[in-house]
Amino acid sequence: MGRASKREEIAQAALRQFHAQGFNATGINDITTAAGVPKGSFYNHFSSKEESALEALSRYAATLRFDMLANPAQPPLERLRAHFEFLGRDTVENGFVHGCLAGNFGAEVADHNEEIRAAVKNGFDQWAQRIRQVLVEAQDRGDVSGGLDTAATALFLLSAWEGTLITARADKSTAPVDAFFRTVFDVVLR
Amino acid sequence: MGRASKREEIAQAALRQFHAQGFNATGINDITTAAGVPKGSFYNHFSSKEESALEALSRYAATLRFDMLANPAQPPLERLRAHFEFLGRDTVENGFVHGCLAGNFGAEVADHNEEIRAAVKNGFDQWAQRIRQVLVEAQDRGDVSGGLDTAATALFLLSAWEGTLITARADKSTAPVDAFFRTVFDVVLR
Repeated sequence: MGRASKREEIAQAALRQFHAQGFNATGINDITTAAGVPKGSFYNHFSSKEESALEALSRYAATLRFDMLANPAQPPLERLRAHFEFLGRDTVENGFVHGCLAGNFGAEVADHNEEIRAAVKNGFDQWAQRIRQVLVEAQDRGDVSGGLDTAATALFLLSAWEGTLITARADKSTAPVDAFFRTVFDVVLR
Repeated sequence: MGRASKREEIAQAALRQFHAQGFNATGINDITTAAGVPKGSFYNHFSSKEESALEALSRYAATLRFDMLANPAQPPLERLRAHFEFLGRDTVENGFVHGCLAGNFGAEVADHNEEIRAAVKNGFDQWAQRIRQVLVEAQDRGDVSGGLDTAATALFLLSAWEGTLITARADKSTAPVDAFFRTVFDVVLR
C-alpha cells in the first residue's frame, strides 16, 4: 500500500469512527486499528486527532448530496423533502444510530475546541444558505407564503433536523422523523 | 462532612461536569476533584459513572421548571414561550455553551448505552407530553388551528429546540434561538 492510499484508509476510518463513536470515545488507536495500519503511521499523515476530525467533517459534508437541493428537474419543495429523506436514511436504516456528524460534534466538541466549532458553524452556514435558496425559489413560484422569512426558516429547519436525529436515536423509532416531515411540509411550508 | 452530604456533593459535581464536558470527557477523577472529595469515595455512593450520569439526568430534569408549562395564570402559548425562554437562558447567558444535558447525552451516548438512552427517551417523552397538553389547551381556546396534530407538533417542537441549542453553540449567537421563536410562534402556532 503506497503512502497516498494509506492516508486515504486512515481518513476514511477516522470518519467512520468519529461518526459511530463520537470524538472523545475515538482514540488514534481505534482509527489505525480500523484502517489496518500501524498506530505510528497516523502521525505521518495527520498532526493530531483534531486535524483528522476536521477532515472527517469535510468528507462527511461531501456525502450529503447538497447538489440534490439545486436539481432543476424537481420543484423546490419536492427537492427539499428528498434532501431530508436522503439525510435521514443513514440513521433510520442503521437502526437509529449515528445521526449527523456535524450535529454530534456540535453537541460534544464545539464548546471545547474552537477549530471544530468553526468548522461545524461553517458547515451549518453553507447548508442554511442552500436551504434558503430552495425556499426563495418556492416563494417565487408561490409554493410558500410570500411573508415567510426565508433566512430564519432555513436556519430553523436545519436546527429542527439536527434535533430530530437526536430524538429519533433516543426513541429508536421514526416518530420524530415523521413529526418533522409532517410539521415542516404540512404546517411551516404550507 | 457526613456521608449524605458527601454523596450530594458528588452528585452535584457530576451533573456540572457532565453538562459542561460531556459523558466521555468526564472521568470519575474530574467529578471527585470538582466535589472536593477523595477519588475512592465516589464508589461509596455510586456503582459506576453510568449510575451517576443517570442521576445527573434526573437532577437536570428537575431544574427545567416543567411546572411553568401548567401555570394557570398564563395563557397556554405565553406559557410555552416562557418555557423555552427559560430553557435557553443557561446556554445563552453562559456564552452559548452547555446546551441540554438530555440532548447532549442523546447525541453522544444514546447509541452506546441502553440505560442512558432509555432515560433520555423517558425524559423526552414526559416533556413532549407536557408540551402537547399546552397545545391542546391552546387548541381548546382557539389560539391555534383545530387541525394541528398536537402530538406530532409537540414532538417536533422538542426536537427543534434540541437542535437549536446545538446550532446556537456552533454559531455562538442568538440567531438560531431567534429563528426558533420566530418560526414556532409566528408560523407553526399562528
